[in-house]
Amino acid sequence: MLRIYGDLQSGNCYKIKLLCSFLQLEHEWHHVDILAGETKKTAFLSKNPNGKIPLLVLPNGHCLTESNAILNYLAADSHLLPTDLFHLAKVQQWQFFEQYSHEPYIAVARFIAKYLGLPDDRRADYEAKHQGGYKALSVMETQLTTTPYLIGEQITVADISLFAYTHVAEEGGFDLTEYPAISAWLDRVKSTPNYIAMS
Amino acid sequence: MLRIYGDLQSGNCYKIKLLCSFLQLEHEWHHVDILAGETKKTAFLSKNPNGKIPLLVLPNGHCLTESNAILNYLAADSHLLPTDLFHLAKVQQWQFFEQYSHEPYIAVARFIAKYLGLPDDRRADYEAKHQGGYKALSVMETQLTTTPYLIGEQITVADISLFAYTHVAEEGGFDLTEYPAISAWLDRVKSTPNYIAMS
Repeated sequence: MLRIYGDLQSGNCYKIKLLCSFLQLEHEWHHVDILAGETKKTAFLSKNPNGKIPLLVLPNGHCLTESNAILNYLAADSHLLPTDLFHLAKVQQWQFFEQYSHEPYIAVARFIAKYLGLPDDRRADYEAKHQGGYKALSVMETQLTTTPYLIGEQITVADISLFAYTHVAEEGGFDLTEYPAISAWLDRVKSTPNYIAMS
Repeated sequence: MLRIYGDLQSGNCYKIKLLCSFLQLEHEWHHVDILAGETKKTAFLSKNPNGKIPLLVLPNGHCLTESNAILNYLAADSHLLPTDLFHLAKVQQWQFFEQYSHEPYIAVARFIAKYLGLPDDRRADYEAKHQGGYKALSVMETQLTTTPYLIGEQITVADISLFAYTHVAEEGGFDLTEYPAISAWLDRVKSTPNYIAMS
């Protein structure tokens, strides 16, 4: 049985849960309490020395980390991962974009607002995150004006990767009103068979 | 002919140059001057709406961005990309680690020191980058104490991804003395046939 360690409040962990639901993959979900320091304990660090969730443990005990690497591993041989070399590379392009140009702004703004309660000493940081986050949303809007999903006509893991934090961007203070293509895409992903909400 | 747009002072661009040398891939290299605003011009944004280098343009005009996605595309069917599903996922794990937990600290500290000249108003930021950067180096050291390359016995694109900024970490004020496994690995990569230096 696949074992997945995560917290469903984290978009990075929710990506894996959503993929497992789309593909109806059997797995055991182990909740990890980050705020209680569980990812910093020796038992966890022996599985991921970087001390982060999500973490996938295979039946043979091998460990895999980084949400998007886990998605691509679990989606192999499914309709959610293209086999054509160029489209496979485009999936990865969007996933690296997500981790470098999207998540550090949109997820972190949400964290500051939702989990820290937007304290005064983080307000400047929060505003700065909005600038980068809106830039990332513009890049997505440009693509989604052209194609219904990020890679083209069909949903792929790239959509799961970007959906996770985009669909809760409002919790980080982002207004999606001026991003109609993103809004339509969010609805498209939500209407996919076996879709499950974040928690 | 493959066209690659980049700046060889950027580790993300150097990754592609190093891969092309290892695999002896013919290509045209187009220098892009970021400081002159070339990535913000309409002609460039039409190829990459995110306004970043490196950028790969295929003979059919299709564009691919994000350094690690480009590496994986160009290395397909070569000895630098594992075909086994799990090892392929491990390559991606290290590449996502690089973009999220390594580059934003080590490359940015180098940028602040080498290109901005470490101005006083960036010193606190610079120190903060060191904390995250040393954590990333520790994660690498843990792995490289066990295996000669990040994925195991053979060099892969994951090593190229992590080598790019690690081998110039000293330019960002990092001291590698206490990371003997990383130092030995850097020498191992440098002694690979067709290795080329950063610029």
